[in-house]
Amino acid sequence: MPDSRPVNVVTILGSLRKASFNGIVARALPALAPQGMTIKPTPSIRELPLYDADVQAGGYPPAASDLVQAISAADGVIFVTPEYNYSMPGGLKNAIDWISRAHPQPLGNKPVSLITASMGVIGGARAQYHLRQSLVFLDAHVMNKPEVMIGAVQTKVDAEAGELTDSTTRDFLSVHLHAFAHYVRRIISG
Amino acid sequence: MPDSRPVNVVTILGSLRKASFNGIVARALPALAPQGMTIKPTPSIRELPLYDADVQAGGYPPAASDLVQAISAADGVIFVTPEYNYSMPGGLKNAIDWISRAHPQPLGNKPVSLITASMGVIGGARAQYHLRQSLVFLDAHVMNKPEVMIGAVQTKVDAEAGELTDSTTRDFLSVHLHAFAHYVRRIISG
Amino acid sequence: MPDSRPVNVVTILGSLRKASFNGIVARALPALAPQGMTIKPTPSIRELPLYDADVQAGGYPPAASDLVQAISAADGVIFVTPEYNYSMPGGLKNAIDWISRAHPQPLGNKPVSLITASMGVIGGARAQYHLRQSLVFLDAHVMNKPEVMIGAVQTKVDAEAGELTDSTTRDFLSVHLHAFAHYVRRIISG
Amino acid sequence: MPDSRPVNVVTILGSLRKASFNGIVARALPALAPQGMTIKPTPSIRELPLYDADVQAGGYPPAASDLVQAISAADGVIFVTPEYNYSMPGGLKNAIDWISRAHPQPLGNKPVSLITASMGVIGGARAQYHLRQSLVFLDAHVMNKPEVMIGAVQTKVDAEAGELTDSTTRDFLSVHLHAFAHYVRRIISG
Repeated sequence: MPDSRPVNVVTILGSLRKASFNGIVARALPALAPQGMTIKPTPSIRELPLYDADVQAGGYPPAASDLVQAISAADGVIFVTPEYNYSMPGGLKNAIDWISRAHPQPLGNKPVSLITASMGVIGGARAQYHLRQSLVFLDAHVMNKPEVMIGAVQTKVDAEAGELTDSTTRDFLSVHLHAFAHYVRRIISG
Repeated sequence: MPDSRPVNVVTILGSLRKASFNGIVARALPALAPQGMTIKPTPSIRELPLYDADVQAGGYPPAASDLVQAISAADGVIFVTPEYNYSMPGGLKNAIDWISRAHPQPLGNKPVSLITASMGVIGGARAQYHLRQSLVFLDAHVMNKPEVMIGAVQTKVDAEAGELTDSTTRDFLSVHLHAFAHYVRRIISG
Repeated sequence: MPDSRPVNVVTILGSLRKASFNGIVARALPALAPQGMTIKPTPSIRELPLYDADVQAGGYPPAASDLVQAISAADGVIFVTPEYNYSMPGGLKNAIDWISRAHPQPLGNKPVSLITASMGVIGGARAQYHLRQSLVFLDAHVMNKPEVMIGAVQTKVDAEAGELTDSTTRDFLSVHLHAFAHYVRRIISG
Repeated sequence: MPDSRPVNVVTILGSLRKASFNGIVARALPALAPQGMTIKPTPSIRELPLYDADVQAGGYPPAASDLVQAISAADGVIFVTPEYNYSMPGGLKNAIDWISRAHPQPLGNKPVSLITASMGVIGGARAQYHLRQSLVFLDAHVMNKPEVMIGAVQTKVDAEAGELTDSTTRDFLSVHLHAFAHYVRRIISG
């Protein structure tokens, strides 16, 4: 009997560029999700100031609170991000630095999956393992497989329309989301 | 015959907190440098917006230009940074993301050393290897040894006075700077 | 109501040295385990040949079969290992390379914890994150916390008697094992 | 005026399989080297026992001495290796563990380049960054660029003849070797 409990997932987008390839991928996910899984974006990481303990002492920023609240309310989190300079984008790491200061820790014990896309062949793999290391500290449960590293992403989208057009990639994302739905249900009921 | 060609080095500080322990370490360096080596801070990474290719398309930010110029004018660069969430701070990674978009690449072929300090015992080691990976992409020459990872940094400073007081740490930093002066001269003359 | 289902765990030791500090730590674990958790060593990784697909084509080595069988029969696995050259020991990686060729994959979906000990202050942290990366590929569930990195291990044992004597370390290992017992029960029932 | 001082380089092969794709790549290098650069294999890592300090106490193994001697006599070292389980092969790491026990350290201050080949698209990238981390400890100078990660290597060779046939790959390796010849001359004269 398939488990069809509703699963609510949010995507955290690591790129700020309006026409971001990763943004296109993230927006394609809801239509590829299995029945019972809803996927919505978190508030953007764009409004977060650079992390500074002095700023924090003056009050946790509203943009950080909104992000934390969205994560807390979700059953799982999908990071969708490019790789910058062989690691995750500074903006995404900055979001994690803010999130890390929240109590209770919203990523603690939370099922997480990683999706990266890049124009090169490696598809963001280097960003994923750095992100995984930070998520050890935050005690998230990061799904291992199937890993999604979308290489040559520029050839797999209709940039004009902002749509992910490559059917192989769409199918693989669908498989990933099915696996993640299963993983989320398993972790949150464990 | 000791090589005493002048060496001009800049420090990039990874923390924004006013009373930052790493800031205290960075400000202690000039007095610990060997003869012929001058050490100055770069402009702060604080004023950089989060990297966004759309922002960049509207003009490379002045704060980024200032940082790039300071790096370009220096013979070598010392990163002095805390570790956040088992990696480098988002703010520092954001600085690297902006720097990476400059041509010619100011960190390309540049001698670099890493200094990390943290309150725990590990002293920021995890941040160093992530930083090293990004610096492979930027083609910097990162000195291997002696590595400086200052653990329990809060016990090694006079926080009130903002001074690095631990003599063992001061001595070790002095050794590190001597080695870096030698490394810089070797790399830039190579 | 505390969950007291029996949990059978095996330790894989990364060092071959007879008087290995990590061996002392591994042998201390059974006495520190919570009620219901039994801990036994796997067969040594010592008898494994260097991985070679040609050797494998001639028959999977008995030492590898024994190791795989011990892992398969266990509810969870604890790696106890030193760090060599900022990574895991070659001998341990070689064991993983042999294990990776077994079908079904014995580490797949298996709860895993990591314990490292070293004579330096960092306690083997660098080995842990490399090991974690390999375990992503093998689809193991690696517990995040509490991480155990035992620094200055030579001061925490009676080397003559081969006993772990430091009570703080013993207590912390006990906490780790309690957490792992809980983690194992959660993952295998998930 | 081009620098044409002779440069003697050795390759350390990370695979033991007779028909290894990486072996094919390694054997293709001499013919692709620029004038003045000679490339020879080191003795195989195959004869090394698993590293064990007790074995070492009984005498440094001849196979390790031979390997160390070959490295010491060379101006530079090229690692040519597959990726196993998202890291370097255990056999290669084992070789590094033996090498690390030699004094003076043969990889210390030695120019090094990395070449990886794999059947997947990522081409061994994950192995390279782990190898780089170990080489920080050994104080080698690892060239940053151009990185060589040969994906889908099985399509780029004539496996029967044991020859690297893909002209794009051959050209890129030639570019890599030119850069490495320059790098070696720079580092050893620095």
